Amino acid sequence: ESEEAITEVWAAMNNFYLIINAQIVFFMQAGFAMLEVGIISPKNAKSILFKNLLDMCTVALTWWMWGFGLAGNGASGQIVAEGSSFGDFGMGEGVTRGGSGRGGGLDWENSAAFLHSLVFATTTTTIMSGGVAERMKVEVYIFLSVILSSFVYSTVVSWGWGDDGFLKEMGFVDFAGSCVVHLVGGCAALVGAAMVGPRRNRFTDTGDVVSFKSTSLVLSSLGAMMLAFSWISFNGSSVLSTGGGNLELAAHAVTNTLLSLGGAGVTSVVIASLLQKGTYDLPNTINSILGGLVAVTAPCAFIDNWNAVLLGIISSMVSMGSSNFVMKTLRIDDPLDAFSVHGACGILGTIWTGLFAREDLLSMVGHTKGAGLFYTGNPELLLAQLAGCGVVIGFTTITIATSSVFFHLVMVAYKAARGSDEIVVDDIGDDDGAMYAEDESATTE
Amino acid sequence: ESEEAITEVWAAMNNFYLIINAQIVFFMQAGFAMLEVGIISPKNAKSILFKNLLDMCTVALTWWMWGFGLAGNGASGQIVAEGSSFGDFGMGEGVTRGGSGRGGGLDWENSAAFLHSLVFATTTTTIMSGGVAERMKVEVYIFLSVILSSFVYSTVVSWGWGDDGFLKEMGFVDFAGSCVVHLVGGCAALVGAAMVGPRRNRFTDTGDVVSFKSTSLVLSSLGAMMLAFSWISFNGSSVLSTGGGNLELAAHAVTNTLLSLGGAGVTSVVIASLLQKGTYDLPNTINSILGGLVAVTAPCAFIDNWNAVLLGIISSMVSMGSSNFVMKTLRIDDPLDAFSVHGACGILGTIWTGLFAREDLLSMVGHTKGAGLFYTGNPELLLAQLAGCGVVIGFTTITIATSSVFFHLVMVAYKAARGSDEIVVDDIGDDDGAMYAEDESATTE
Amino acid sequence: ESEEAITEVWAAMNNFYLIINAQIVFFMQAGFAMLEVGIISPKNAKSILFKNLLDMCTVALTWWMWGFGLAGNGASGQIVAEGSSFGDFGMGEGVTRGGSGRGGGLDWENSAAFLHSLVFATTTTTIMSGGVAERMKVEVYIFLSVILSSFVYSTVVSWGWGDDGFLKEMGFVDFAGSCVVHLVGGCAALVGAAMVGPRRNRFTDTGDVVSFKSTSLVLSSLGAMMLAFSWISFNGSSVLSTGGGNLELAAHAVTNTLLSLGGAGVTSVVIASLLQKGTYDLPNTINSILGGLVAVTAPCAFIDNWNAVLLGIISSMVSMGSSNFVMKTLRIDDPLDAFSVHGACGILGTIWTGLFAREDLLSMVGHTKGAGLFYTGNPELLLAQLAGCGVVIGFTTITIATSSVFFHLVMVAYKAARGSDEIVVDDIGDDDGAMYAEDESATTE
Repeated sequence: ESEEAITEVWAAMNNFYLIINAQIVFFMQAGFAMLEVGIISPKNAKSILFKNLLDMCTVALTWWMWGFGLAGNGASGQIVAEGSSFGDFGMGEGVTRGGSGRGGGLDWENSAAFLHSLVFATTTTTIMSGGVAERMKVEVYIFLSVILSSFVYSTVVSWGWGDDGFLKEMGFVDFAGSCVVHLVGGCAALVGAAMVGPRRNRFTDTGDVVSFKSTSLVLSSLGAMMLAFSWISFNGSSVLSTGGGNLELAAHAVTNTLLSLGGAGVTSVVIASLLQKGTYDLPNTINSILGGLVAVTAPCAFIDNWNAVLLGIISSMVSMGSSNFVMKTLRIDDPLDAFSVHGACGILGTIWTGLFAREDLLSMVGHTKGAGLFYTGNPELLLAQLAGCGVVIGFTTITIATSSVFFHLVMVAYKAARGSDEIVVDDIGDDDGAMYAEDESATTE
Repeated sequence: ESEEAITEVWAAMNNFYLIINAQIVFFMQAGFAMLEVGIISPKNAKSILFKNLLDMCTVALTWWMWGFGLAGNGASGQIVAEGSSFGDFGMGEGVTRGGSGRGGGLDWENSAAFLHSLVFATTTTTIMSGGVAERMKVEVYIFLSVILSSFVYSTVVSWGWGDDGFLKEMGFVDFAGSCVVHLVGGCAALVGAAMVGPRRNRFTDTGDVVSFKSTSLVLSSLGAMMLAFSWISFNGSSVLSTGGGNLELAAHAVTNTLLSLGGAGVTSVVIASLLQKGTYDLPNTINSILGGLVAVTAPCAFIDNWNAVLLGIISSMVSMGSSNFVMKTLRIDDPLDAFSVHGACGILGTIWTGLFAREDLLSMVGHTKGAGLFYTGNPELLLAQLAGCGVVIGFTTITIATSSVFFHLVMVAYKAARGSDEIVVDDIGDDDGAMYAEDESATTE
Repeated sequence: ESEEAITEVWAAMNNFYLIINAQIVFFMQAGFAMLEVGIISPKNAKSILFKNLLDMCTVALTWWMWGFGLAGNGASGQIVAEGSSFGDFGMGEGVTRGGSGRGGGLDWENSAAFLHSLVFATTTTTIMSGGVAERMKVEVYIFLSVILSSFVYSTVVSWGWGDDGFLKEMGFVDFAGSCVVHLVGGCAALVGAAMVGPRRNRFTDTGDVVSFKSTSLVLSSLGAMMLAFSWISFNGSSVLSTGGGNLELAAHAVTNTLLSLGGAGVTSVVIASLLQKGTYDLPNTINSILGGLVAVTAPCAFIDNWNAVLLGIISSMVSMGSSNFVMKTLRIDDPLDAFSVHGACGILGTIWTGLFAREDLLSMVGHTKGAGLFYTGNPELLLAQLAGCGVVIGFTTITIATSSVFFHLVMVAYKAARGSDEIVVDDIGDDDGAMYAEDESATTE
């Protein structure tokens, strides 16, 4: 009887832990909104806010309708019911407590796992909005956000985190989602940015990059701090339950998260002062900090503290280098550096896990297939990590590009049928700039 | 002994749960402040911030002094001491742990329940500030906020949530406060808005509505996202304790909260694009999202997921319709649509519970008097819900209107005695517009 | 076996509690950033944001490298390993769970205590940034923030909170850090403000104070509300563990925190309307609220509710009086009133504990050396509190002043060697004002 009572305590604590951390991860929507609105031009502020509010709404619905079902048991430790499948609209058959006859995806007693997985899906989607900021129509964005969250992301989750997932079976490991979340979002941002093309006058005829004015770096800094706050839940709560020493591991993961943030932030300033002789670059430091957070997301539970600092230092170089490469070499206009922060640093973190993950810490989450190359000399884990990156890059790029083109073609056909030749995907946003009191158009109704 | 140890664990977890969720609900003060300051005119920003900071302070004091005592055991599961009554200034007699000789309202060991009830009282009050924004003097607002929170709200709590409350005895049920919190705040907002009259030039001589400029929709969007974040605690933590499967119910309630939000947000865009052919209306989407949250607050723990989506869809129509009705038919100037969001959607959610609440889920919170009409064919619960709405509307309207007139008369008498004929209630705010660096008057001291 | 299972539950709940509260205290970085950026001049907004982002990064690294080790068992109940010492770079020897052979500061299983202590160190540092706002170069600020957090603060922690700390042995008690955190930060702010000198044109030739324009009181109000939100964790979580009735004590501490906030806020308005006949002063109310929070930080767990209200009332007078004294008599330009809020009210709260702390509540945290003078007639506790204030003021002033001069001399020597005669410490900030879209310089790269 006492044993049963203790089981009930653990169940309550697990639910408490999942709910409150899901809630704080949900707050990332506000963090990304402030980050993005601060960097872009004021005339597109309304559009980006609209997209961020709306993707939160649509993803809640589509994740419930089929995303959660498709993700299977990869989603936050959900207990998958027999026969759970696409299109069951989140409805389980059995509702009696502890009943075994569940026929569908989401049983109400399973809601904590649903919530926790939902907010990770929402975050993945919102990352994309940075890449296509100021140029994508709301309709297109919402279409892509549904594809990304409830098909692409949910599939990657089932491959990388699901018990039968082929990546997981290969030995791939990603604690909180450098690859599964951030690389998916970052790739989608890059593909999107490439497809919508650069903002007007972003590049001169001679190929130089023109700097644009930002709305307010106060808002961006606020957004970055809000994200750092929420990231503690993002990484810590990926232990998914509270028993068996998991919360000691969570505290270790959070410590590494802040150490990587620290290493990345300091490095950004050192590099900036070396390269530019004393001027400070706030957006660069913000992006470095976020890149440090992305990079440590995969290995945070598995590496030593000193190693997290080192990862932060290197992530700062990677995000800065990638930003330069995307802008100047690829000539893709990614206003928030969404790919450099989430994609490039996501790859770094995934690979880093293959190099430095400690065997004893991996075993805490039940991982037994290999450990960091530098400790074991065995490249098994590293190869699985590389495979994971490759699969995610390929799958995300193909699905998002295909979906965009598909949507484009449908819209072209639709417009043609209605006698309009407007082309949607490449359009400059449809905003009227109505954000501020100075604007005539910023009215309350 | 082991049983005792487990009891202590549950007690600690309950306190932990109540404190942290009270804290996050407290954050709604900041959310409402940003929401409101973003929508109204910049020249009244200082006034609304001042009111929001100050009502937080005054309600903390008056809720402690008598509001909590008046609310009785309706307040967050507090253990009511014998003889607890108005005017005991929150002081219990006994302070030894577990002592049974308590003579007053708040014993220090009972503080978690106090905190949790306090933040609900504060929220109720702040809702009102939206309705009277830009027109009510600080003194009047503070007077009304004390009346509203510590007399009106505390009384409604004792009727609707208290063990002997006459509404509760009738079978009335309101999980987290669509009626008890939001309808009270929304009614007070409407009464206040009617009494202070419209903002200058809000209506033309021919009766048209003039749109006003907003300070910043960035701030409003941030506020809405902060509120959505806090709302998860508002609804989830209304299970009030962590044992007995309550946290599974909390997770279900939170899931429904986000699904209603999703349904409402998407619907607002669909309607806007149907009516206005493609332009997007950010304030409308924000209000729809908030309306969806209000509506689901009463039934969130008791309905099915699909039903929460449907409720969200309908709540969006209700808040938009009500906004139109209040502005164009009643010709009341409610700048934040506080009544339409909190009042109209509060009524919707309360009635909805009478239509769709599931018997098995109601029984989780000990409710045994009837269930949703559509499941049982029995209108018992629905009638209790309608009675609850009627009582709250009548009581709030009468008390707030009476208090306003009373305050007005006292002030008129006071001014007359001092030889001034200034009339207080109808005044345009006393702000000097000192909010921004552009203003000469925005100084730091 | 059942006993062991319960021990494991408590361990998990403790970690959960420390992590989530550390996370919310970490959010104070964002709160302070908004508070500060709102009050100061727009042209220095970038600088203050940069400092707040960067001190978060540097303190994370230095607290890990040596601060935590130096703080010893004063830091959030950490289990100090044998031989823990300066320079062990946070690395413990033993990593096996429960192992006894730890040779260094931070073992990964000890991370929750590390996190909780880290965010208190970060807060201490950020307080200083208010005092030196708009005038200190980033390099100097970062240097001082490292000195302050990882040497000065960690030393004070070991004296006041460590088991062998000489202040603690004297009977000194400070629940959440009015003295240990806020007085340290406030003193450093005052010393810094005195050393960098007033902002240009702050004082006229005839000695009058010139009011400066603020960037946005919306941001300051948001910051204050964010800080109030986080403060609940700051004070509540200082019980450090969840068992033994600690969470009842935490709820009591939080209740007192909000009551002091309430008393302080209301008093600020009463005083303002008495002195200035009806105009309201938003920055003054914000500072009073924060002063009320600082003052109650030391005694919040140990005093009665009514006493917390009284403390709030008095703290408002103290912060307003101190602000006047520092500005008009000392003629030190402390833009955020960091000393008056954190220093003066920190002293008030520390002494107040010596006057009104209840014996039974002190015993809840194991304190047995005396109680409040008004209850016992014995000045033992009061004298220890006075000693604590004296030691902290002396130690902080001397170390920060010495470090500043030292840094100054090094920089002078360095510049001389490079043939430059620029003097660093007194410099007006090196910002170019690049914060807003209106500024040409506010670019995204």
